[in-house]
Amino acid sequence: MSKKTEPARPEARLPKGFSDISASEIRASEEMLGTIRGVFESYGFEPLETPAIEYSDALGKFLPDQDRPNEGVFSFQDDDDQWLSLRYDLTAPLARYVAENYQNLPKPFRRYQVGPVWRNEKPGPGRFRQFTQFDADTVGALSVAADAELCMLAADTLEALGIPRGQYIIKVNNRKVLDGVLESIGLGGNENVAKRLSVLRTIDKLDRLGIEGVRALLGKGRKDESGDYTQGAQLEAKQITSIVEMLEPKQIEAGDLGAAATGIGGEGLREVADIASLVDSAGHGDRIRVDPSVVRGLEYYTGPVFEAELAAPITDDKGQPIRLGSVVSGGRYDGLVERFTGEKVPATGISIGVSRLLFGLQRLGKYKDSASQGPVVVLVLDRDRIADYQKMAQELRKAGIRAEVYLGESGMKAQMKYADRRGSPCVVIQGGDEKAKGEVQIKDLILGATLTSIENRDEYLKKQAEAQFAVPEDKLVEGIRKVLARHKS
Amino acid sequence: MSKKTEPARPEARLPKGFSDISASEIRASEEMLGTIRGVFESYGFEPLETPAIEYSDALGKFLPDQDRPNEGVFSFQDDDDQWLSLRYDLTAPLARYVAENYQNLPKPFRRYQVGPVWRNEKPGPGRFRQFTQFDADTVGALSVAADAELCMLAADTLEALGIPRGQYIIKVNNRKVLDGVLESIGLGGNENVAKRLSVLRTIDKLDRLGIEGVRALLGKGRKDESGDYTQGAQLEAKQITSIVEMLEPKQIEAGDLGAAATGIGGEGLREVADIASLVDSAGHGDRIRVDPSVVRGLEYYTGPVFEAELAAPITDDKGQPIRLGSVVSGGRYDGLVERFTGEKVPATGISIGVSRLLFGLQRLGKYKDSASQGPVVVLVLDRDRIADYQKMAQELRKAGIRAEVYLGESGMKAQMKYADRRGSPCVVIQGGDEKAKGEVQIKDLILGATLTSIENRDEYLKKQAEAQFAVPEDKLVEGIRKVLARHKS
Repeated sequence: MSKKTEPARPEARLPKGFSDISASEIRASEEMLGTIRGVFESYGFEPLETPAIEYSDALGKFLPDQDRPNEGVFSFQDDDDQWLSLRYDLTAPLARYVAENYQNLPKPFRRYQVGPVWRNEKPGPGRFRQFTQFDADTVGALSVAADAELCMLAADTLEALGIPRGQYIIKVNNRKVLDGVLESIGLGGNENVAKRLSVLRTIDKLDRLGIEGVRALLGKGRKDESGDYTQGAQLEAKQITSIVEMLEPKQIEAGDLGAAATGIGGEGLREVADIASLVDSAGHGDRIRVDPSVVRGLEYYTGPVFEAELAAPITDDKGQPIRLGSVVSGGRYDGLVERFTGEKVPATGISIGVSRLLFGLQRLGKYKDSASQGPVVVLVLDRDRIADYQKMAQELRKAGIRAEVYLGESGMKAQMKYADRRGSPCVVIQGGDEKAKGEVQIKDLILGATLTSIENRDEYLKKQAEAQFAVPEDKLVEGIRKVLARHKS
Repeated sequence: MSKKTEPARPEARLPKGFSDISASEIRASEEMLGTIRGVFESYGFEPLETPAIEYSDALGKFLPDQDRPNEGVFSFQDDDDQWLSLRYDLTAPLARYVAENYQNLPKPFRRYQVGPVWRNEKPGPGRFRQFTQFDADTVGALSVAADAELCMLAADTLEALGIPRGQYIIKVNNRKVLDGVLESIGLGGNENVAKRLSVLRTIDKLDRLGIEGVRALLGKGRKDESGDYTQGAQLEAKQITSIVEMLEPKQIEAGDLGAAATGIGGEGLREVADIASLVDSAGHGDRIRVDPSVVRGLEYYTGPVFEAELAAPITDDKGQPIRLGSVVSGGRYDGLVERFTGEKVPATGISIGVSRLLFGLQRLGKYKDSASQGPVVVLVLDRDRIADYQKMAQELRKAGIRAEVYLGESGMKAQMKYADRRGSPCVVIQGGDEKAKGEVQIKDLILGATLTSIENRDEYLKKQAEAQFAVPEDKLVEGIRKVLARHKS
């Protein structure tokens, strides 16, 4: 074995499923988050922040994906050997927070939270291991009025983001409907927990697998495109038929249920009808649809579940349609606080998938041009006079103008190129000649870029004079303002 | 062994060193971050976001605290057995990003980033395992003009946050000065890396341990208040004296060095003098001080280091003085990108400790009252008419007024108490009587709270009539606006 004399260099790369976010996307995202925050605040929700790390047992195991060793969650042991996990959503931490602070909270407790969550899943195209969620939850409200309100909140948020009515749809269902069907086909009771879970997770994949895929996974199993075989839930044909029948689209309107619906399933349908009716009377009726195929993959839901989709077709850069999936989702989870306290605390909430929604909005032509104008660049012609250049930049900043001094080692040409790369509207130039005259040169890069297309000589000279001009040193701010005014969008 | 019939309930608690952040602190923090962002943008820095998780080898081991098994970092293995870590600062991920994207970046590259970082340290009072940093870095700028600019940026940021000139101090030093001393006492060379590190870490604790504590830790070792003995760096008395001499405050002004300072230490001093001179000519001179005791604990610094402190004494709730420490810190790290690429890429940056700075500002009376006014609460007197109440809340929201319907199960009295808890300016009341008259009652809670202190009967009746009044249903918004106008701050 030969010994290396130099230590090996690490490779500069990110783990799969993680990504850096660029300036223009951050700006678009900030703008979008600000709008969402405004709508959530207008509904009386208050912000809360919980840390990224929680005790694993406090978060519980409610994720749909159990294919991975630590069940979809990043976990590690603390110094005292207790298990810690990175949060996989913002709902489980909220339940912990409410259980911990119950006595001191106003009830109902309305909170919103925005932040990253982590899933230790197999990364794939568009599937990330870190992504941002924006949640609103109402804890301590038993009535479906709280669920109805969250559907309205989702609708108002999408409209505030520029999706007009008719261009999105809110789907509502109730987990109890599924529970009723499962009970009726003999899958009730504690002994069938595992089977019920695999039914739930199978249905949640309907969108991706189609009805035949779901049928196969409810039965013996299914081979996917890659040839991998997934074991099914081993239900009997009759059981499968009942479930598949439930998934068929049907119209459930307020008040059209009567006494027909009985048991837990009937209760679920009545709740859905009540939500529809409430939303309807608040004038949001046309935006909400009951959809029996919506079950949501998270195990902790106990009642109404909802999701919102954009109705407009989304395409990729090549014009190929993209199945975006739901951009908002949520539901009622009356048992999540009870896990800690033993006392039932009703709760319901929605979660916005921030990156997915932003992607959808951008594909629809919104939030596309959030790049701010680059800074004015003060060029460095005489390295000994960098303090003077800093003073100019400082003067511009004080006037509210973004400005910087070129801090690299390169010459004039590279500095101009740098200013171009930065998207600067103009540069400030002061060499020895200008200094001697007490002047600075201002070069308008946006106007300058159009010069080459001018064929008329007089016109060219006129524009050229406009594109680069001298001002006295003490008129720097005015000169720059003149250029900025030209390019105001 | 007896088998439990019910699963044990998890305890609702956070791991030590982590905390939840309340609404009012989030609002204060958002306001502060917005101001910082504005100043950083004005200097031409662009936002970047990197994920929380990186490959451990990409982050490297540069933390001061090596007392803990995984050296202060939260780490875990990926499915392919590679080690991942939560970032412990925003500088190491920036170096990875720059190394990965070097060809496509404008050079110099200026970026800012704000986000949480994690340290797997022993938590203590005011010491958290998750905290937020706000960084600005310039990569690709060799000149100390870049370091000087960051000092100016720190000063301008603190002033924008309401700390007037004279109420903060920026301390500047150079890691090379320490390197020069270490060389002169025979601690240069590769064989002394470990010793140099422990000297560095000892000096970084000067603030906390005092000069005698540092002396002890440079020598045999030291017993702390709890009786724990910490092994020292085992330097000889003469070596210790040289280091302690270096730590003594002295005045270094631009140009007063001459040829006296030689070697690496002299180079360091000259750079510091250049920074002081640049900052001075830009008009920031009075705010910056050279302080030879500043070394910064992070191992990766290679040149100028800086930190900013608030000058005003900070006290706790009982008036006891608190040592806040530095609120901004940073320095030059010319070797961090080279770790990946083998090519030298100069870089320098500053980092704001967001929570610490906010705490300091709040103790100085700033950002204290960021609580927004609570929402108008529409009371629910008739549960069957919840849709009507939602419509009223919606009407208010459309008029730009924060509003919510009470969604709990309690009666009138509890609802009023809830509105108080929420800090609502007023409530909307419509029972059967009001409905019959086509009216709503508006009750001003802020004015109402002052009634009990009024002794004059006529005055009381007048104020009482102002505090609760009826308006026609279609004048709800106007009525609420009247109340809000009374309490505008």
